[in-house]
Amino acid sequence: MKMKMNDAYSGFSIDFSRMNINGSALNDMQGMFAAAMREMAALEAGAIKNPDENRKVTHFTDRAVYRTSELFCEVEEFAAAVRNGDITGGTGKRFDAVVVNGIGGSALGPQLLQFAINGPYWNEKSRSQRNNGLRVYFLDNTDPAGLKDLLEVVDLESTLQLCVSKSGGTRETLNNLTALINIYKAQGLNYGDYACAVTMEGSLLDKQAKEMGFMKVFPMAESIGGRTSETSIVGHVPAAMAGIDFRSFLDGACRMDEWTRNGDVQNNPALMLAAMWYIAGNGKGDRNMVIVPYADRLVLLARYLQQLVMESLGKELDLDGKIVHQGLNVFGNKGGTDAHAFIQQLNDGRDDFFATFIEVLHDADNVPLEDNCNMGDYLHGFLYGLAAALSAKKRPVITMEISAMSPENLGLLIALYERAVAIYAEFIHINAFHQPGVQAYKLAAKGMLDVREKLFAALPENACGSASELAETAGLDMPDAVAGWLNRAAANPESYNVERKYSAEKEEYIYTVK
Amino acid sequence: MKMKMNDAYSGFSIDFSRMNINGSALNDMQGMFAAAMREMAALEAGAIKNPDENRKVTHFTDRAVYRTSELFCEVEEFAAAVRNGDITGGTGKRFDAVVVNGIGGSALGPQLLQFAINGPYWNEKSRSQRNNGLRVYFLDNTDPAGLKDLLEVVDLESTLQLCVSKSGGTRETLNNLTALINIYKAQGLNYGDYACAVTMEGSLLDKQAKEMGFMKVFPMAESIGGRTSETSIVGHVPAAMAGIDFRSFLDGACRMDEWTRNGDVQNNPALMLAAMWYIAGNGKGDRNMVIVPYADRLVLLARYLQQLVMESLGKELDLDGKIVHQGLNVFGNKGGTDAHAFIQQLNDGRDDFFATFIEVLHDADNVPLEDNCNMGDYLHGFLYGLAAALSAKKRPVITMEISAMSPENLGLLIALYERAVAIYAEFIHINAFHQPGVQAYKLAAKGMLDVREKLFAALPENACGSASELAETAGLDMPDAVAGWLNRAAANPESYNVERKYSAEKEEYIYTVK
Repeated sequence: MKMKMNDAYSGFSIDFSRMNINGSALNDMQGMFAAAMREMAALEAGAIKNPDENRKVTHFTDRAVYRTSELFCEVEEFAAAVRNGDITGGTGKRFDAVVVNGIGGSALGPQLLQFAINGPYWNEKSRSQRNNGLRVYFLDNTDPAGLKDLLEVVDLESTLQLCVSKSGGTRETLNNLTALINIYKAQGLNYGDYACAVTMEGSLLDKQAKEMGFMKVFPMAESIGGRTSETSIVGHVPAAMAGIDFRSFLDGACRMDEWTRNGDVQNNPALMLAAMWYIAGNGKGDRNMVIVPYADRLVLLARYLQQLVMESLGKELDLDGKIVHQGLNVFGNKGGTDAHAFIQQLNDGRDDFFATFIEVLHDADNVPLEDNCNMGDYLHGFLYGLAAALSAKKRPVITMEISAMSPENLGLLIALYERAVAIYAEFIHINAFHQPGVQAYKLAAKGMLDVREKLFAALPENACGSASELAETAGLDMPDAVAGWLNRAAANPESYNVERKYSAEKEEYIYTVK
Repeated sequence: MKMKMNDAYSGFSIDFSRMNINGSALNDMQGMFAAAMREMAALEAGAIKNPDENRKVTHFTDRAVYRTSELFCEVEEFAAAVRNGDITGGTGKRFDAVVVNGIGGSALGPQLLQFAINGPYWNEKSRSQRNNGLRVYFLDNTDPAGLKDLLEVVDLESTLQLCVSKSGGTRETLNNLTALINIYKAQGLNYGDYACAVTMEGSLLDKQAKEMGFMKVFPMAESIGGRTSETSIVGHVPAAMAGIDFRSFLDGACRMDEWTRNGDVQNNPALMLAAMWYIAGNGKGDRNMVIVPYADRLVLLARYLQQLVMESLGKELDLDGKIVHQGLNVFGNKGGTDAHAFIQQLNDGRDDFFATFIEVLHDADNVPLEDNCNMGDYLHGFLYGLAAALSAKKRPVITMEISAMSPENLGLLIALYERAVAIYAEFIHINAFHQPGVQAYKLAAKGMLDVREKLFAALPENACGSASELAETAGLDMPDAVAGWLNRAAANPESYNVERKYSAEKEEYIYTVK
């Protein structure tokens, strides 16, 4: 069985030979391969592959069309006009930065691409070093500290506000949007004059954007989920603002798509990759996937794949409604650095993982050292040294090579993993495209905010007691949740009127409502 | 059994009640607790607790003394003089930035502290916004791209070069040091006039620093390992350059040390934490530790703990030389963001983890939203909502609270985890303070560099063939390693004279040495 595959055109290669998996295990899966590839063909032909949400799944197919669409050109033209100053914000100041307000799939992909292509210090560079590309910031949470930190370094008038949310109902993004609207208002500025949105037509955000006169609203497809949206307009708009060649990125993704549509496992790296995950983890994710790119600029790759893989494959029910509790853990950071951290455990400790090493063949710079070696030689030596050390202990390793750090090669990588995830989902017979656990969590969070409202409405002035006592006073049968709110309240006198004092005798806090 | 502990003075609290572990499981461990605490007392009294390296382990005890030492004051004074411009580099320009050249323990702790206390955009702020604190950069790999990126944003003459390596023999750090010396030289500057070092007295780096006339060499103790060095001078010098209150950080660590020396599991959060890890993972790390701080500024915490826990506990042999393959996987990022990523799997998928949520009670800013709620209320609601959702599915959760984002509270957290790791190592009877796997890896990497030297010395001009053929030509029985070097060589024509062409017929690359 052939365990290495090359794409000579792009220079991409992948090597499964260190996985300790023999051909017969793969041969036993031929029926599963055929079935999975049939389903993938059906998916690309427009079948409803996200049955819970009654949706098609179009990220594999839309990107090929998107490359040459009018919408693509519209984004490019708009971004070019922003970068060169033809389009400005309300006061006419040239835009120098963009804030991407989005979470999960709306942030992780753009963050990965920005960091990989423009590097870690982009925002510190001069406009000319940036070739007029905008500085790029992300608001990807509902943390007041994150917003405050951001506002200390951006100038409102020269910052383009890009709000990305499919439904417009994602609370974290909505919170930042609301806060920013207020902040612009307080400065006498109209937020809409600085704002763009990427959202579904007819969404809450779409409506709000139109009411507020956003500069531009870019439509996104319902059939593309957040975690697979990096090759759609969600990835495009932020990338274009920073001057990243997004068409090359899509070309790379489409090249991988074309390669990975065939049913021959020996000539389909996505099919083989999924098979390796399946065999290594006994079809249940019994081994963690450790992602170690040997490149400082790919430090966010593991985080991106963590979302793609775990949100897609971590499911309670299979497609027949049977409880399966599936999943596949992903973590990692970057090599060779990690060799001085968790890789001690990979070498010596629990045999519960497979590692994936990713090498960038072309050095960004030739840095000569002594002994006729250069800095990149050492990085390469560390990768192969670790692969050899792990192999000697029969710990499974996949190695990959990309020719250089480029948008095209990033496209190859992302499309490879997207397809491997979709194929693996077929092997384990689950829906890879919904996220019921996230919905459940949103409801639970809503419940907690209801507790807050009831609690502070019910507590009379001068109420005093332990969390359990005050929970009882408020008629709330959730002392832990009440304690959480009271602790938060006591720590934030700007927002609440609660004091707490520790009672050594009772070994708990006593709260007073002022 | 009491499952919550509070430190009213600092506002720290920890809650184990969602771990689904009852008092009897803890009672069964009382003998182990007593034995572990005896060993911890011996460790602090100076026993050789790192037997392989015949070393004491002094990070718990040294920090209390260090706080009031002459060396501490010397660092503070030197850093103050650098910050206010009394000490400059060779050409008299005021220092504006510091580059910390160090890897693993010499980087992850300083990165965590800098990001948590000074925020993500520190380097973009003006000097006055920074209160004269230096901008801080890290070189933590041997990646030419990382070095190139850095050199595009720092000015050599106003940058203090801080090289951190205990032995001075760590190759990645040494490579950056060598490269920087050359780069300064090429600009007509003497690297030593801009450089400081933190290293052991008598080390290679110490000697080199003295020969080259470094501005300052700060001594570090042999008995403090890299991954536990953040509360030593290794953490202090970078922090001081950025104006972080390191004494408060040490005060927090020492406060936790004092609390966690007692043998009562109900009143020792480190002992309880280690016990929870042990019971949850059946004493073998069968559950992954998922770290989710609800704070943008703590996004590096999981990476820091990944090193601390996995490098300490991921061991092949126990203290009796028995093969045990121990370990404890750690990963995470930040909440609420992660709820839109891998937390889908935690909610619904594999039941193979326990989550640790960390809350920062005080909001950095009061950001009002509608419904009388503010932004921090939502973050809190998301944390408690997720904890409730996970608990409803019987998935184990630990929650922690710190009062605010401060050096002192970071010190509490780090000291808590350091001690829990040391105690857990006693439970599983391993040496938590060595890293034999890292040594093995270093040797393997050295072997790969030897392959390189032999290969290119042996290949004659115009040699042509597949990797296997050229490996044979060179007398090297390692076709994979040879292929790796040839692929690298072909991708870097600035450094090598190798071409590769894909042979569709043979399905492999053919290389030509020019």
